[in-house]
Amino acid sequence: MKATAIANANIAIIKYWGRRDEALRIPTNNSISFTMDDQLQSVTTVEFSEKLRHDTLQLNGRQPKPKQLARVSHFLDFVRTKAKKKKLFAKIVSKNSFPTAAGLASSASGFAALAAASTLAIGLRSFSENKKNLSMLARLGSGSASRSVFGGAAEWRAGVKKDGSDCYSVQLSAPEKWKDLRNVIAITNSKEKRISSTDAMTRTVRTSEMFKCRLESVERRLRIVRKAIYDRDFESMAKTIMQESDSMHAVMLDSWPPIAYLNGISLEIIHKVIEINDSYGRPVAAYTFDAGPNAHIYTTKKYERAVRKALDDVDGIERVMVCGIGDGVRYPKKDLF
Amino acid sequence: MKATAIANANIAIIKYWGRRDEALRIPTNNSISFTMDDQLQSVTTVEFSEKLRHDTLQLNGRQPKPKQLARVSHFLDFVRTKAKKKKLFAKIVSKNSFPTAAGLASSASGFAALAAASTLAIGLRSFSENKKNLSMLARLGSGSASRSVFGGAAEWRAGVKKDGSDCYSVQLSAPEKWKDLRNVIAITNSKEKRISSTDAMTRTVRTSEMFKCRLESVERRLRIVRKAIYDRDFESMAKTIMQESDSMHAVMLDSWPPIAYLNGISLEIIHKVIEINDSYGRPVAAYTFDAGPNAHIYTTKKYERAVRKALDDVDGIERVMVCGIGDGVRYPKKDLF
Repeated sequence: MKATAIANANIAIIKYWGRRDEALRIPTNNSISFTMDDQLQSVTTVEFSEKLRHDTLQLNGRQPKPKQLARVSHFLDFVRTKAKKKKLFAKIVSKNSFPTAAGLASSASGFAALAAASTLAIGLRSFSENKKNLSMLARLGSGSASRSVFGGAAEWRAGVKKDGSDCYSVQLSAPEKWKDLRNVIAITNSKEKRISSTDAMTRTVRTSEMFKCRLESVERRLRIVRKAIYDRDFESMAKTIMQESDSMHAVMLDSWPPIAYLNGISLEIIHKVIEINDSYGRPVAAYTFDAGPNAHIYTTKKYERAVRKALDDVDGIERVMVCGIGDGVRYPKKDLF
Repeated sequence: MKATAIANANIAIIKYWGRRDEALRIPTNNSISFTMDDQLQSVTTVEFSEKLRHDTLQLNGRQPKPKQLARVSHFLDFVRTKAKKKKLFAKIVSKNSFPTAAGLASSASGFAALAAASTLAIGLRSFSENKKNLSMLARLGSGSASRSVFGGAAEWRAGVKKDGSDCYSVQLSAPEKWKDLRNVIAITNSKEKRISSTDAMTRTVRTSEMFKCRLESVERRLRIVRKAIYDRDFESMAKTIMQESDSMHAVMLDSWPPIAYLNGISLEIIHKVIEINDSYGRPVAAYTFDAGPNAHIYTTKKYERAVRKALDDVDGIERVMVCGIGDGVRYPKKDLF
């Protein structure tokens, strides 16, 4: 009744922003991401026990906020329902290797690990041993978690069915395929964000009049990025990655009240990346921003130093870290408790 | 052959962003603005002389940049053509009461004053004495200048004709009609901007896939704002003003390369204005940003102090000034030289 799973964060290059079904977390469009290496990792141990009267959660060694516990319990309700053990509660201990809720996609790795650990612990082998099903389940906790189930590059398919049964992720390429790809992460603000991405994307779909226009562009960009990943062709996807990020932040700004996750430092970094590419005469780096001000600059090993050097000129960056491409969910031998 | 004119800046609440004809400066959509009081003013003296072999320009007591002189000369070519005096050059002296090219609409007041002074000096009375024609002409120098011809509130009509002959401004309400309206201006950066609004709007029309969606929203917003001005109803236009500004900056961000005129301080001010309105339970202030990071916060006399007080909490504002609503172009008795 006890199991532990590891999952890594993923950073989308085609974004998940907007849902056609709120409760089932079915997105309005497909999204594509790379799964990060073990520097951005969640480890989660789940133990179900007849003795427990409710779920307990310890997150990074601390008591969680009531909202965080409620979200985890709500997710475990899906697991309990599938296992037909509605009254079986769990002790959950989870650790992130990076700051929670700062736009570093901690909910993606967290819920992917939780989905894997809880289904193994409760004996749902059709999930713990089947990545397609696991990604469909992880989605119910946090949409982007469905992509973290896979290593390398993953595409989360929105599907068309009402019940979400065709809404899951597939692997586009294995982690080994693109070994020299790097994500240079510039942390510009590690504090918690003002508005959760869940609330923000709901607001965008409801209030941004330009949102429907964005969806058309996303379809075009998906085709470009899929092919670029297949061809391992960084140059041909770089501009598309940046436009996709800009487009998402544009519809945020077009929402009411407007949502501004980027800060002044983020904007400086955008200009800096464009400058780097201009100086080489071709795209060697591509920024993308999630629902937060931290920059993720995809580049290749060859240009990693140039990107880091360019970031030295930008005031206010708290920390720079460089991630490679990593693995999907896995089960370590050691539990957290 | 010598004449002087005064024109004030205007700050749009429905924005001019995008042209259907570049050379004739015919916009993609109607726009609406208030003309500011005499604190944001351009005074321009033009003297045509047979003795001159080329145009000369003095701007704020200094030699202009070659680009600025070229733009003024290009505008005077229209005036010379209409006057059938193609070889008659001019000495132009112009002064702004506020920093040039910092997003405080200096080109609007500058070209409105230039259009008025030059047509009077050269004897084109069908322009210097006819505000509709004057606004059509001023448009050829700077699109938004066509609105500064009128005091109070003005709407610049895009028209449908190819030659721009139905593309001019009309007054929506006289300056006296809304005496307690205020624009609290927060200067967050008085330096010259990176990219001119002319280049930026061309880039947006060419590259933003969401731009066509914006145009649909603008039509709806025009109707709301026109009625609010007619009714002198601040509350009913406040939210629309803010959404319009957000929408313009959203399509800028959606352009390639992305255009970011707002800075971190601008974003703070946006949140601050939303807070003020929340605290009153109704909209008492409305921000709008032109092609620059400076905030224009429309409010009424009653809430001016509350707005200024709220801005005290925002770090990095260089200067706050408060403008009322002002007059259109006029001819003073005194020349600048």
